Amino acid sequence: MSTDRYERGAAMLAAIDGPAGLAVVDGLAKSFPDFARYIVEFPFGDIYARKGLGLREREIATVAALSALGKATPQLRVHVHAALHVGCTPSEIVEVVMQMAVYAGFPAALNGLAVVREVFVEKDISLPLVSD
Amino acid sequence: MSTDRYERGAAMLAAIDGPAGLAVVDGLAKSFPDFARYIVEFPFGDIYARKGLGLREREIATVAALSALGKATPQLRVHVHAALHVGCTPSEIVEVVMQMAVYAGFPAALNGLAVVREVFVEKDISLPLVSD
Amino acid sequence: MSTDRYERGAAMLAAIDGPAGLAVVDGLAKSFPDFARYIVEFPFGDIYARKGLGLREREIATVAALSALGKATPQLRVHVHAALHVGCTPSEIVEVVMQMAVYAGFPAALNGLAVVREVFVEKDISLPLVSD
Amino acid sequence: MSTDRYERGAAMLAAIDGPAGLAVVDGLAKSFPDFARYIVEFPFGDIYARKGLGLREREIATVAALSALGKATPQLRVHVHAALHVGCTPSEIVEVVMQMAVYAGFPAALNGLAVVREVFVEKDISLPLVSD
Amino acid sequence: MSTDRYERGAAMLAAIDGPAGLAVVDGLAKSFPDFARYIVEFPFGDIYARKGLGLREREIATVAALSALGKATPQLRVHVHAALHVGCTPSEIVEVVMQMAVYAGFPAALNGLAVVREVFVEKDISLPLVSD
Amino acid sequence: MSTDRYERGAAMLAAIDGPAGLAVVDGLAKSFPDFARYIVEFPFGDIYARKGLGLREREIATVAALSALGKATPQLRVHVHAALHVGCTPSEIVEVVMQMAVYAGFPAALNGLAVVREVFVEKDISLPLVSD
Repeated sequence: MSTDRYERGAAMLAAIDGPAGLAVVDGLAKSFPDFARYIVEFPFGDIYARKGLGLREREIATVAALSALGKATPQLRVHVHAALHVGCTPSEIVEVVMQMAVYAGFPAALNGLAVVREVFVEKDISLPLVSD
Repeated sequence: MSTDRYERGAAMLAAIDGPAGLAVVDGLAKSFPDFARYIVEFPFGDIYARKGLGLREREIATVAALSALGKATPQLRVHVHAALHVGCTPSEIVEVVMQMAVYAGFPAALNGLAVVREVFVEKDISLPLVSD
Repeated sequence: MSTDRYERGAAMLAAIDGPAGLAVVDGLAKSFPDFARYIVEFPFGDIYARKGLGLREREIATVAALSALGKATPQLRVHVHAALHVGCTPSEIVEVVMQMAVYAGFPAALNGLAVVREVFVEKDISLPLVSD
Repeated sequence: MSTDRYERGAAMLAAIDGPAGLAVVDGLAKSFPDFARYIVEFPFGDIYARKGLGLREREIATVAALSALGKATPQLRVHVHAALHVGCTPSEIVEVVMQMAVYAGFPAALNGLAVVREVFVEKDISLPLVSD
Repeated sequence: MSTDRYERGAAMLAAIDGPAGLAVVDGLAKSFPDFARYIVEFPFGDIYARKGLGLREREIATVAALSALGKATPQLRVHVHAALHVGCTPSEIVEVVMQMAVYAGFPAALNGLAVVREVFVEKDISLPLVSD
Repeated sequence: MSTDRYERGAAMLAAIDGPAGLAVVDGLAKSFPDFARYIVEFPFGDIYARKGLGLREREIATVAALSALGKATPQLRVHVHAALHVGCTPSEIVEVVMQMAVYAGFPAALNGLAVVREVFVEKDISLPLVSD
């Protein structure tokens, strides 16, 4: 058992996404307990817990990658929530996704913005942003 | 003609990547002048010039996306240079690319790190980083 | 403001997709007005408005790319409509998507054909086509 | 007409996926008869019918590829069924999809496991597996 | 043996790409004879030989898809040659690849244009095109 | 420190790929020691070390996924070696890669077969295989 990594990962997941993140992992663990443990241990216990890059920057990187890849809608939704939770502004999130039009095409940005809009509705963030 | 956008984009490209960025565009313009102009105007004149997200964060997003997509090696090289140029630390860049193992798999991160290493050699940045 | 590009793009969008295209952009503009403007200006005002390739050929290229990429279903639906609107025959559209089995695999073609079928139902185009 | 390939493919499809596979092809044939015929002839009549690799191994390769590509959910569902039908154990299927976290990222594996869970519910296979 | 399809495919391949296309297949056949045969039979004997879409349009679709996918450089080179061979103008080819910036991002278009330039050099087609 | 996972992973890597696998990791560790450690620990110490799927089947899944993704050539080369090392026959490897034409398109299979040929040359495996 890798207790330290799991505990560090669970703390990091709570810091990044609040109780919602742990709830997602608990739901997964009912069907795939080992994979749920790996998610806590490797992405959160090993990677997100590293020094050298702030959590805001980590979430910006993740929102960018998931929008660009364009085939991970449920995970993008989780990380738009997480980006807000660690202090990214709504504008920063919208800007990151819009920027993906340059690197992955307009459909990737459009589909990413549709996810952003869903999360913003849940969080009572009005669109359009004043800055837009 | 859209002079304002072009001039704003050229200034932004110089701010992000120094003279190297403009040299790349000038090379492209010899064969594909309209496309070279679009690159200055849309990505740099429209997107990077927007408020709401800092240049360091924009480069973090771009390095993340290009590593994750894994099929844009020349562009990743340009943006590792650009990330350093706008003030990202070497550690931040390495962390972003390593994090892509989580979202796009270990081969994407490995191939991204190979590009990072090439750029760091050109810039006399020693690896491994002390923080690693 | 880039008024000329916007007006040229809006005219091109109407020529390609009829009133439905402008309605999609207007819906987007309620949440993301700048991105809605970029879509009119760059893809339609800059690219589709260029000489050197006919609109039928542009839509064939777009239907091919979106089917092959396989992660842009809403945009593929729009462009199957647009392809019909600019004069592609139903057979041409089905042939393009089938051909993607060669370059992107059978699942990409199958999922593209499912979108084609939905649009053809809306447009009262009977399947199978006589030519098939 | 390529009768031999079609008959060999139809027999192979029935061997791999039972009557469900042929039903899928029959449904497709109502709209796209030629493409339905190609699917029987090339993937099943040419490729799966070849010697040199067992059917269990062929389904492991297909489940791996479709999970990794991450944009072919309906086809992944068919091939999780097929993998069970040709004798892969539930554990083998779960292991293959989990392994894709290494090569295509955790979202690809997570979305693949969601499909596995749906199929296992239909087949009354309890999760978590005892081996997990 | 499926003699008819092979002969029809070989004739189609010669019509599309001249002797170069058959030479590529012959080279492949030295190592992978069955796969070389499949390439002649399915893409060329079944798909390209179909009615309902002209060869110019088929090559436009293929150049679009291969540029957008961005991971099939050798095949893109073959099909830029083929597009010229079946009568696409240099402008049409450049326009198709540029248009992929919209759907697959600027790096995909840039890397596609680099392939176009290589082929145009071989064919003594001067860049920039006068129309650009 | 997660000593057990590292040792288990290093043993698994040696079992799968012989001394060559460890040499690759040692080379990586000179520039990116933490990432080299993660590769030993997570893919090999956690995933490949699991019960429920044989090593031959794991390599079939990996060769399939890397061929289908088509952007991980160095990693595909390593895993064609590994597949041979754990007992896959040359035919099985060729069949897996050919099968990817169905799911990821002919270019993915062609580019995968080019890697297979390189590795087979190094290992003195003659092509074409007698079974082909």
